[in-house]
Amino acid sequence: MTGKQKVAVVGASGYTGEELLRVLSRHPNIELTAVTSRQYAGKTISQLLGPQALSANLVLENLDPAAVGGKAEVFFLALPHGVAAEYAVPLLKAGKVVIDLSADFRLKNPAKYKEYYKEEHPAPELLKESVYGLPELYREALKNAQLIACPGCYPTSAILALAPALRHKLIRPETIVVNSLSGVSGAGKKADVVYSFSERDENMMPYSVPKHRHIPEIEQELSNLDGEAVAISFTPHLVPLVRGMLTTVIAEMVHPHKQEDVQKIYEDFYRHEPFVPVLPADQLPETKRVQRTNACEVAVRADARTGRLLMFSAQDNLGKGAATQAVQAFNVRFGYPEATGLI
Amino acid sequence: MTGKQKVAVVGASGYTGEELLRVLSRHPNIELTAVTSRQYAGKTISQLLGPQALSANLVLENLDPAAVGGKAEVFFLALPHGVAAEYAVPLLKAGKVVIDLSADFRLKNPAKYKEYYKEEHPAPELLKESVYGLPELYREALKNAQLIACPGCYPTSAILALAPALRHKLIRPETIVVNSLSGVSGAGKKADVVYSFSERDENMMPYSVPKHRHIPEIEQELSNLDGEAVAISFTPHLVPLVRGMLTTVIAEMVHPHKQEDVQKIYEDFYRHEPFVPVLPADQLPETKRVQRTNACEVAVRADARTGRLLMFSAQDNLGKGAATQAVQAFNVRFGYPEATGLI
Amino acid sequence: MTGKQKVAVVGASGYTGEELLRVLSRHPNIELTAVTSRQYAGKTISQLLGPQALSANLVLENLDPAAVGGKAEVFFLALPHGVAAEYAVPLLKAGKVVIDLSADFRLKNPAKYKEYYKEEHPAPELLKESVYGLPELYREALKNAQLIACPGCYPTSAILALAPALRHKLIRPETIVVNSLSGVSGAGKKADVVYSFSERDENMMPYSVPKHRHIPEIEQELSNLDGEAVAISFTPHLVPLVRGMLTTVIAEMVHPHKQEDVQKIYEDFYRHEPFVPVLPADQLPETKRVQRTNACEVAVRADARTGRLLMFSAQDNLGKGAATQAVQAFNVRFGYPEATGLI
Amino acid sequence: MTGKQKVAVVGASGYTGEELLRVLSRHPNIELTAVTSRQYAGKTISQLLGPQALSANLVLENLDPAAVGGKAEVFFLALPHGVAAEYAVPLLKAGKVVIDLSADFRLKNPAKYKEYYKEEHPAPELLKESVYGLPELYREALKNAQLIACPGCYPTSAILALAPALRHKLIRPETIVVNSLSGVSGAGKKADVVYSFSERDENMMPYSVPKHRHIPEIEQELSNLDGEAVAISFTPHLVPLVRGMLTTVIAEMVHPHKQEDVQKIYEDFYRHEPFVPVLPADQLPETKRVQRTNACEVAVRADARTGRLLMFSAQDNLGKGAATQAVQAFNVRFGYPEATGLI
Repeated sequence: MTGKQKVAVVGASGYTGEELLRVLSRHPNIELTAVTSRQYAGKTISQLLGPQALSANLVLENLDPAAVGGKAEVFFLALPHGVAAEYAVPLLKAGKVVIDLSADFRLKNPAKYKEYYKEEHPAPELLKESVYGLPELYREALKNAQLIACPGCYPTSAILALAPALRHKLIRPETIVVNSLSGVSGAGKKADVVYSFSERDENMMPYSVPKHRHIPEIEQELSNLDGEAVAISFTPHLVPLVRGMLTTVIAEMVHPHKQEDVQKIYEDFYRHEPFVPVLPADQLPETKRVQRTNACEVAVRADARTGRLLMFSAQDNLGKGAATQAVQAFNVRFGYPEATGLI
Repeated sequence: MTGKQKVAVVGASGYTGEELLRVLSRHPNIELTAVTSRQYAGKTISQLLGPQALSANLVLENLDPAAVGGKAEVFFLALPHGVAAEYAVPLLKAGKVVIDLSADFRLKNPAKYKEYYKEEHPAPELLKESVYGLPELYREALKNAQLIACPGCYPTSAILALAPALRHKLIRPETIVVNSLSGVSGAGKKADVVYSFSERDENMMPYSVPKHRHIPEIEQELSNLDGEAVAISFTPHLVPLVRGMLTTVIAEMVHPHKQEDVQKIYEDFYRHEPFVPVLPADQLPETKRVQRTNACEVAVRADARTGRLLMFSAQDNLGKGAATQAVQAFNVRFGYPEATGLI
Repeated sequence: MTGKQKVAVVGASGYTGEELLRVLSRHPNIELTAVTSRQYAGKTISQLLGPQALSANLVLENLDPAAVGGKAEVFFLALPHGVAAEYAVPLLKAGKVVIDLSADFRLKNPAKYKEYYKEEHPAPELLKESVYGLPELYREALKNAQLIACPGCYPTSAILALAPALRHKLIRPETIVVNSLSGVSGAGKKADVVYSFSERDENMMPYSVPKHRHIPEIEQELSNLDGEAVAISFTPHLVPLVRGMLTTVIAEMVHPHKQEDVQKIYEDFYRHEPFVPVLPADQLPETKRVQRTNACEVAVRADARTGRLLMFSAQDNLGKGAATQAVQAFNVRFGYPEATGLI
Repeated sequence: MTGKQKVAVVGASGYTGEELLRVLSRHPNIELTAVTSRQYAGKTISQLLGPQALSANLVLENLDPAAVGGKAEVFFLALPHGVAAEYAVPLLKAGKVVIDLSADFRLKNPAKYKEYYKEEHPAPELLKESVYGLPELYREALKNAQLIACPGCYPTSAILALAPALRHKLIRPETIVVNSLSGVSGAGKKADVVYSFSERDENMMPYSVPKHRHIPEIEQELSNLDGEAVAISFTPHLVPLVRGMLTTVIAEMVHPHKQEDVQKIYEDFYRHEPFVPVLPADQLPETKRVQRTNACEVAVRADARTGRLLMFSAQDNLGKGAATQAVQAFNVRFGYPEATGLI
């Protein structure tokens, strides 16, 4: 497809919204027609982001769903969960395409939503319609989606590390242990002493143990890959850097595979995926290599000594873990080359 | 002097208060009898600071001046300006010794206080009585002080860098340019996006230009050293580390001095000061060397090419710039060896 | 015991040696009589460490085993593996006490040494004699030890997190997965681009997968605790901070224990250990709380959903993970109160 | 101009070379035909930079001047001083365009080169021919340049901050004091303990005082702007971040100008410069805003109290301070829109 889409960003006050603006303002097939922000209404993109974004003179506005609805055909929602649904419902009724970066439409089971988000799901009828915005697994469905539910950062990193192993039945799903390290931007743009420089610098900690909100999302997708219900242990850690996410997954192998076999399975699985490079057997991922890109580097190791498979992934939590992955889904949805605006 | 003093810390919610607790809880001549904190009332020191402080079971309380007054003989005030005076006035009336770490009693001229702090001075009659808590310049007066006004972090670093040059008339005071770099803990323990990790990490900026509140304090003390009114340019910068302060001062030399001459003047000036090491002529200060100490390292360079004198100092903004310097002043006041509890 | 021991530090060129100097120079029962360093020979402690250490005028020397042997009664070896044995053998023959911080005397099985360190063990006859320097598990044996093999940083963090669970048979040892995050000082003081600021800042990575050299040491001690051979998965990660180590351990529970039960087991196990605080059930460890201390904070969580036990520990890799733990072992060996010089 | 230039990068082993590859590999009018690197010869760009660069399969080679000369028409030299001239001389003879990022052709006076670089200038006859690659001052000359000498990072930041003030005679040149803070990548990709993470993190220091090699370059250009010889004080500082440079300049005003006057002079001076935004009077520069851009944000303050002018600039030391500025000069040279490939 050629031509441009009229696009609005709803909610540009946080780091994901900012990153969306940086990327969308450079995208050759996007015309940014509206950007909303309660906090920065009245400022231009240039005042907010300096020389890091184009469309510099566009003014941010505080707009409700009705007001913003007329301004574009495609809407990126970078809003808190719950609030996103308030925008998505009327926009979808009006025939718009909604690319939602919140948690509102990721879980197919509204009971899980209630269990982890402590509220009734605001629009359960839309859960069947939404397509999970991970192009590596849902590329075909995304091409016709009206509502795209972009994955969370932790789920993206865990699913991409595990997908080949589960599809190829390399591991026992009931033994999966996921440990993730996240940069502080993952906590959002918050006025909170816990996330202040003086508290976080030279410090690290686990958090949200043992029931982080991303668990049902990870388990839903791993279950789809495996064919049976998968339950995992997931432990997120906060480390002192701004952008980056490193995930280490360990599980028992079903059979004692050799490194060259699992290496080949992983390489084959992602052979045609431009954004999931599989590292050679002598290299492990580093987050800096993927910073400010849409890539999620993946590595796999068969540990003969313990009979376990080790899987690793590295991504930018604001990139493949959030904003650029949403743009990748946009490209798939509208038929642009998948890397448009992303490299 | 031997024996112990009953000591209270008023205001332990911030980084200076925390550092005071770490140091005072180890001081062999101090019995911590009360610690106040609005925010952490009910918690023990151990809950607040973990294994970094002793007196672990002492419980923090929210106490007004009257209530805390009966609990100790010496009071360290780690409070915001204005609030400090509310405690200092009744405590002094009750005959207590007050070691104030706020800005309330540093400026001798209440008009300057009003100009920079935008309020009438709350107790101008005490300004004559207070002794500036920089032992290197006011050791004798501190021995009998009832009210000690501990210096600000920037003033400590600038004054110690400049004192030998001004006393020895090496430089033209009207040409003094002071540039300082501060770690983020200097901004306090604050829930503010500006001081969040994601904003400050990998970032730096000047701030409070050209009228930072520490200017009148620096100028007051430099004028005392020089004998005539000194006006300076002072530019503070925020850099991404937690604890540390580096100050670079540049001024025109009155005469073209050689390095060995200015080196000797500086070494002689601080020869008997255990906490102000003068670095040799082939070394420049680094803040990490003085982190978590009460030292302020000083260096001097004569630049024959430009006819200027370069003066440098490095300290820990929470150490010699705040908490440990207050303890040094306490030691002087009560006749303990000056390094007691500090190394 | 009272009085002072004559103590030498052999190998003060690295971060562990520096930290030893900081701590030992303040220890009231230690007289530092010699410090060796090939790299810094001729410098004083003060030139090396600035105001962070006492014994400032002691000069570092480049001394061979024979030359240093006459200078003290107790020797802390902060040397590379292999080199440590070259000093330990003659010193032990001369009747000295050796506290070795290298890997040379930790493994009881010389075959494991050869497998992981790629060399024949230099003095296998000493392996029976050496006592593992973890006071929480080997306090009695340490009281008469001539050769103390101080634990590695990763082993200390993993063993302390797992000890109560293994002793109380709470978990299936064959399911143990250990993930650790280390500050960069753990890699030593190295001129290597990999450890340069520009490479490591804003970056993180796993490394030495799947066969890190600390694995046989961890497995040896876990097997002692469990009574049967234990094999683990261990994945270390490098994160951008200088000092700190965080370890997350996950294993299947044998029975579905409740949080209050495992909490009580952990609290009882470490009730009399001043340096292993067990955190309450609503708190998780942070490395900053233990920075520059000898503490290793431990937490435990029973995850009913997955039937797994989660165990966490946080320590300073140069503190309880290296230098201060060696001093704790020294205190035990010579009958000083265990916290002497450490708080 | 349209079409593509055949371009080679000579010396891709350092951070400037890497950044050049990132930018040039995306530039729509550049065909990368050769990249040389002694250290990484045999690797592909993709192996070196991962997903951060395109032209992924180009293989780096170790090529001497004769061998590389036939491979392109335009040569970016990211080499140490001295080595750069060894390539530039034969390439220029062969009629190629050379864009040199080293110090070899910046100083017009070979005596200054010898004084600061301790070697005879390797090709003094070329100094008349070279054009200083700062488009904001030398745009016209660059359009026909065969040899472009790209400015150093510190000179760029100082000159852009000072240019309007000197051109408009706002300040007394003999009073100029320049203080700069640089990220650690400015020191290059070096295996040196001084630049290791454990040494530089949580640390800061001045260095190369008082005779940094960039001083004659700054003074040469300020003298051109002022019309008379200008001598400055320049103090660089190393701070713990990777990419960023902040410069603070202070000088006495000739007359007591008001803020609105100096503000207008600065805004007018840079009104048509897309890469030098002048900040409004209520904002000060932060380096993060310009990270990974070609922008150098500038601010100015008139301090009525001291009669001084304060000038600030913020840039990315690898961006406007090095690689992207070289690309900007390339765009000017070949008639492409100046921002091509840069935003």
